[in-house]
Amino acid sequence: MAVYTDITEDDLKRFLDQYDVGELTSYKGIAEGVENSNFLLHTTRDPLILTLYEKRVEKSDLPFFLGLMQHLAAGGLSCPLPLPRKDGALLGELSKRPAALISFLEGMWLRKPEAKHCREVGQALAELHLAGDGFPLTRPNALSLDGWTLLWEKSADRVDEVETGLQDEISSELEFLSAHWPKDLPAGVIHADLFQDNVFFLGDELSGLIDFYFACNDLLAYDVSICLNAWCFEKDGAYNITKGMALLEGYRAVRPLSDEEMAALPVLARGSALRFFLTRLYDWLTTPAGAMVVKKDPLEYLHKLRFHRQIASVAEYGISS
Amino acid sequence: MAVYTDITEDDLKRFLDQYDVGELTSYKGIAEGVENSNFLLHTTRDPLILTLYEKRVEKSDLPFFLGLMQHLAAGGLSCPLPLPRKDGALLGELSKRPAALISFLEGMWLRKPEAKHCREVGQALAELHLAGDGFPLTRPNALSLDGWTLLWEKSADRVDEVETGLQDEISSELEFLSAHWPKDLPAGVIHADLFQDNVFFLGDELSGLIDFYFACNDLLAYDVSICLNAWCFEKDGAYNITKGMALLEGYRAVRPLSDEEMAALPVLARGSALRFFLTRLYDWLTTPAGAMVVKKDPLEYLHKLRFHRQIASVAEYGISS
Repeated sequence: MAVYTDITEDDLKRFLDQYDVGELTSYKGIAEGVENSNFLLHTTRDPLILTLYEKRVEKSDLPFFLGLMQHLAAGGLSCPLPLPRKDGALLGELSKRPAALISFLEGMWLRKPEAKHCREVGQALAELHLAGDGFPLTRPNALSLDGWTLLWEKSADRVDEVETGLQDEISSELEFLSAHWPKDLPAGVIHADLFQDNVFFLGDELSGLIDFYFACNDLLAYDVSICLNAWCFEKDGAYNITKGMALLEGYRAVRPLSDEEMAALPVLARGSALRFFLTRLYDWLTTPAGAMVVKKDPLEYLHKLRFHRQIASVAEYGISS
Repeated sequence: MAVYTDITEDDLKRFLDQYDVGELTSYKGIAEGVENSNFLLHTTRDPLILTLYEKRVEKSDLPFFLGLMQHLAAGGLSCPLPLPRKDGALLGELSKRPAALISFLEGMWLRKPEAKHCREVGQALAELHLAGDGFPLTRPNALSLDGWTLLWEKSADRVDEVETGLQDEISSELEFLSAHWPKDLPAGVIHADLFQDNVFFLGDELSGLIDFYFACNDLLAYDVSICLNAWCFEKDGAYNITKGMALLEGYRAVRPLSDEEMAALPVLARGSALRFFLTRLYDWLTTPAGAMVVKKDPLEYLHKLRFHRQIASVAEYGISS
């Protein structure tokens, strides 16, 4: 939640001269996105988002991200649309950083989603999976099994600072997931980070999905498990089966889940819980004290991981097969 | 530059129900304002600014600030206008903080202002001084001589960490200013913080002034000296007489400066340089290392203070009397 780079009006004007977007009337740095600097622009036409890509984003990944948004929007998904420059390029440069102009999506993310919203999220996720079909670029998921192992090697020594006994527990979990990770499920483009702040609503109606900067190719059902973890637990740590049922029904109404995909959900959900546990753990251990960044608690995802480990039947997620 | 308080959609909806402003379509925390949390709202009508007043602002000062904006806007100044609720109140509450809805002012602040912009700033400052006439509330300037002494008492012990010898130099300066501070100059409402980021332009045309949260009653020419310090020095520390001349001519074209006011400018400019030196010094010494806040260099204002101390004639500011 930060603006890392300031821009001067001269540089911005030169940048905008490459586009056909009307006259600029204001620009404000907005507190949105963890990895990039984002500005909300008003013009004599439509409002726009200007994104400057900071160091944590690989420049070589940008054609995938921007191309994907264009592909999904063309396929009918409501998501931000990168605007081409007059020369056709989707990517430019501003303040020495790669930069893109992106359409502004009206809507608000929900701090307190209800089951009816989870149903819409499930539908939208399935629509995303269908709309991703045919996208010609690919990007491996850097935060799957191999990535988790690398992250774990950097944090394992100190994990007992967070809770004693964790070193053994997480090592065993990684071994289990390596041995049991499903391989033959349907794969495609996944969002991989569809948390509350990446889904906009107008009233109770879902108005669009944003932030495709973790998107990659992976198992579609793994994306479903990420959403179960992000949307269907209460603040006290309890799984809300009503929300889980709504999310899964919403998804399956658009894209049916095979028996194999459903059977794999507990393992996939353990994997996605571990993925967010590990990145939060790493940030927790490496962010200097006093830095004005909200550190997300890794324990939240440890508790989710433990929940999925004791699942006996997928009926516990709310699946009525 | 931060958003300190998040707001939930339910609380925001209840807050907005008290106003007649159309339907909310988005809200974004914006990186603007050091003291408060600011959100840019889009609605089915006009965009708006929502300000949540954080601890550093005295709640008892808010009627002065909000009433002043209303008074100045009614007097023809282009500045943000607080919107009344349906019950007429300018101030409400949101997320347990005092909160106000304020009209959105299009325009951008200049990172690299030129002399022609300084002329417009001078004009606008004089217009503000005239428009402030008749405003019935008053607010003493907490950051004048007495306030400087209090700040100095908190920092004097450690000032030599910034530059050796400063303890004697600043103590002498405070004594000098106490003895020579002008008393009988025209007074009224001043902005007291009219830096670049508080003046908006559309193209080369000044579109409005913002951020009245340091406004108070004080000598009008003291406000002029704040602007000289804020607008008429180059990054290398040199006073730019062309900009100074433009700013002063712009001001005097709207509100003439008396001989006494002009003669007092060097002392007033020493005072305003000391004021920003002292607040920056205090922040410098008390902000924890690693905090993600841009610390402003107090030395910038020490150099300005020294410049004003060696002024032999106000002609050096660019005044052709």
